[in-house]
Amino acid sequence: MRKALEATELQAALQRLSEWRVVEGKLAREFRFRDFADAFAFMSACALRIHALDHHPEWSNVYSSVRVQLVTHDAGGITARDAELAGVMEEIAARFPRG
Amino acid sequence: MRKALEATELQAALQRLSEWRVVEGKLAREFRFRDFADAFAFMSACALRIHALDHHPEWSNVYSSVRVQLVTHDAGGITARDAELAGVMEEIAARFPRG
Amino acid sequence: MRKALEATELQAALQRLSEWRVVEGKLAREFRFRDFADAFAFMSACALRIHALDHHPEWSNVYSSVRVQLVTHDAGGITARDAELAGVMEEIAARFPRG
Amino acid sequence: MRKALEATELQAALQRLSEWRVVEGKLAREFRFRDFADAFAFMSACALRIHALDHHPEWSNVYSSVRVQLVTHDAGGITARDAELAGVMEEIAARFPRG
Repeated sequence: MRKALEATELQAALQRLSEWRVVEGKLAREFRFRDFADAFAFMSACALRIHALDHHPEWSNVYSSVRVQLVTHDAGGITARDAELAGVMEEIAARFPRG
Repeated sequence: MRKALEATELQAALQRLSEWRVVEGKLAREFRFRDFADAFAFMSACALRIHALDHHPEWSNVYSSVRVQLVTHDAGGITARDAELAGVMEEIAARFPRG
Repeated sequence: MRKALEATELQAALQRLSEWRVVEGKLAREFRFRDFADAFAFMSACALRIHALDHHPEWSNVYSSVRVQLVTHDAGGITARDAELAGVMEEIAARFPRG
Repeated sequence: MRKALEATELQAALQRLSEWRVVEGKLAREFRFRDFADAFAFMSACALRIHALDHHPEWSNVYSSVRVQLVTHDAGGITARDAELAGVMEEIAARFPRG
């Protein structure tokens, strides 16, 4: 079963995920790449992991920027799976040159 | 040079693009697919065309839904290139079963 | 457990998969699309399903053509999972205009 | 116009592309990744560049491996565009953990 993280668990997750913030109850981050090709290559790499995890982000792309928001609606908050997906995205983004 | 479409040109474009609306000055549409895999496959197919056109959407994905907004910031409005990209996306989306 | 299909099972599968042939012990098909963008969009759509099935093709791409070979090495032959993946690829390819 | 590289030009290109070999008249390399997801993410990132360059590889994927062969049929040999595409692929592959 999925339960929203307790405040202390969320703090611990945010310490590992130093670029992420909680915005309106969602785990949020903007990634900036060099150009559209890199931004979409990042999204493609994430998509395979997302599909395998069966846990999906709310994400948007404008040219070289990708904004991500993670929340588990069933649990009414941010769960361990959101933190896990954030970690996966962070690892993938780290491969790309910064924009 | 890119110029924003005149009102009559925009009306003509919207007649061809019957599922699109003008929302806050942008050409907008939400596509609904069966699931995440189809939604992202749609985005991947679009990405290759977008990259070749060198004209980029503002788009977001949540599970099986893809929302698109098209505008040409340099021209201060919706241009023929936005209408062209809308047409390309429409053609690609037509291949997928509806969600 | 995965077992190679019996001759009669394989015949039944090939009747459903009318464009596929057995070549050197593998279920094989060449897909032809309009151009590279369509060929790769097909591959991207397949990749998400492949990753979820955890069953992988041998496949190659040259411009608008994608050649696929399916076999289950552990089972020493063509299995029900190969036939399943062939069916998934067939369904995805059917969305694209023919090359 | 595209002309096949002279022997000395090809040698110079191969010195920059230290992992590539000439096999049957084509510039060839096998990339090995951790898993299918990384292999296909590499291919997706390449696809956007390939489409923009309008110069296409012969490439195949089996699970975590991607084999690439580059040649310019119109020129009857390996050209500067093949060497350029090899360089682009090398740069993209360098982002991924090795398999």
